[in-house]
Order: sequence, then structure tokens, then C-alpha cells
Amino acid sequence: MSNATTITADPGVPFVDTVREFDAPVSAVFKAHVDPDLLAKWLGPREAELNVTKYDATTGGSWHYESGHEGAMFGFRGIFHTVDADELIIMTFEFDGAPNQVGISTTTFEEVGGRTRIFAHEVYPTVEARDMALATGMNYGVEEGYERLDELLAG
Amino acid sequence: MSNATTITADPGVPFVDTVREFDAPVSAVFKAHVDPDLLAKWLGPREAELNVTKYDATTGGSWHYESGHEGAMFGFRGIFHTVDADELIIMTFEFDGAPNQVGISTTTFEEVGGRTRIFAHEVYPTVEARDMALATGMNYGVEEGYERLDELLAG
Repeated sequence: MSNATTITADPGVPFVDTVREFDAPVSAVFKAHVDPDLLAKWLGPREAELNVTKYDATTGGSWHYESGHEGAMFGFRGIFHTVDADELIIMTFEFDGAPNQVGISTTTFEEVGGRTRIFAHEVYPTVEARDMALATGMNYGVEEGYERLDELLAG
Repeated sequence: MSNATTITADPGVPFVDTVREFDAPVSAVFKAHVDPDLLAKWLGPREAELNVTKYDATTGGSWHYESGHEGAMFGFRGIFHTVDADELIIMTFEFDGAPNQVGISTTTFEEVGGRTRIFAHEVYPTVEARDMALATGMNYGVEEGYERLDELLAG
């Protein structure tokens, strides 16, 4: 059985808050978030292709990947504001389909009784941009991605 | 007479929106926002010292400055997500007094009848962080800083 993903997106504010636990140590869960080869194995829904073209997960580094299917790839990019090993990732994010609508996410990693709890706080530049992202079915991709991460961590 | 600064901070959302016009061409106003030597001459209130220790205003660059008075300097830092000359600056910002509470601001520069209008959209990580920033008298520093920029541009 997979772990539950809790996603909160209250109306009228530009936030998406996600909580998820994993049956693995913090170091393994963190590594899967910063190593581009590992990231490419779990991020996003199963049926989507993910090409991670840049993922310099250090403070001040930048990242870029494309997700989708042949002939319909969508680009995402951003900058890492803070990367603290096994603790914290703060990064900007921009979808090429909504240029200059840049959000920022803060992901914390906590050890909880031998498991790992991550808490992701995403802030969109407007409430409308947040609602648009939710309307694309983002939640589904996030949940399925975390299921794939469960499998990667167990494998 | 100085130009008016309009600052909007609606309750319950983490945004601060500022609109300001300057009697100068876009290129001059933009340059004063990206050149650290010029920035040090106008940013913030008159009575505060400003030490700009790093200001690499290019996409992916980082910045850091300290503001205050001898013995009581406060640090601010961030990363530039996008810098488009004479058009747009998107950057993260963090106050050392509130570590890991990182916001993001988008400033656009527009030519309006020979003048320049800038629009700054600041997004804080929480509504509480936005309210805290406002409570410090941030508005006053912003308005006085823009008056100093008027003088610099006229000088």
C-alpha cells in the first residue's frame, strides 16, 4: 500500500501545501530530489516522458526539464535559492507556457520515527496562476510521482 | 514635486503591489536597478546605510546587501530568476532576520509618454510574513528610496 499524499489549496490564496511520508531515510529521499538521474525516474505521472536537461541542485544553481509526450513537450525552469543537504530546498519555478509567471517552493525534509516526512509549500505569483496550475491536474501528477518515488526507494 | 508611489497590500493575500512613475527614460531607471553602485545611492530610507556586497543582476546571478546603522545592520539576499534589459527583473528575496522565509518579486519597466512606469509585484511565502514586512515600515523606506531615485535621475 502506498503512503497518502495530502494536498491543501485553500481558495483565495496562491498556495499549494503538500505533505507526504516515505518509508526511507531522509538522506535517500533528499538524494532523489537533487540527483537529476534519480529525479528523472520518478517525477511526474508514469505515462509522461521527462527530460531533465539541467539540474544543478546547489544554492544559486539552475534547473530545466521538459515533460510530456513526443511532439508535445512542456518546459519548466527555475533557480535554486537555497539547498541545505537533507533539510531544505527553496527554488523558483516557471512553466514555459505561462512565461514570467514565476512561483517559489519550499520543501523541508524531516525524520519521523525512521521514516521521512516532506512538506512542500508552493507559492504562485497570483491566485489565478495557482488555480490554473491546479486545473491542469497537477495533483494527479504529484501523487503518481510520489508513488513512483516509493517504488524507487524500495527497489 | 515628487511622483506618487502607490502601494497596495490587500488583507488575506501575501502580495504587495507598487506602482511608481519616474521622469526619466526606461534605460536610466532600469540601470539604476541593476548597477550596484547606483543602487547603493538610492535604495531605502535616507538615514540608513546600504552596503551592497554582491549584485550580479543577470539571470541566475545572486545578490546580497546590508542595510541599517553601524552596529545594527540587517542582511538581505536573493537570486535573480530573470533579468531582461529595460523590461523585467524577477528575483527572490530573503531577510536574514526571517531565515528561509523567501519571497519573489517581479518588477516591470514600461515607457509611458517619455516617462517610465515601474510595477513591482512582491509575493511573500505567507500572509503573516507579508504583514510582518509591512509592520516594519517597509512602505516608508520604499517611498523615500524612490524619492532619492528621482533625485539621482535628475542629477
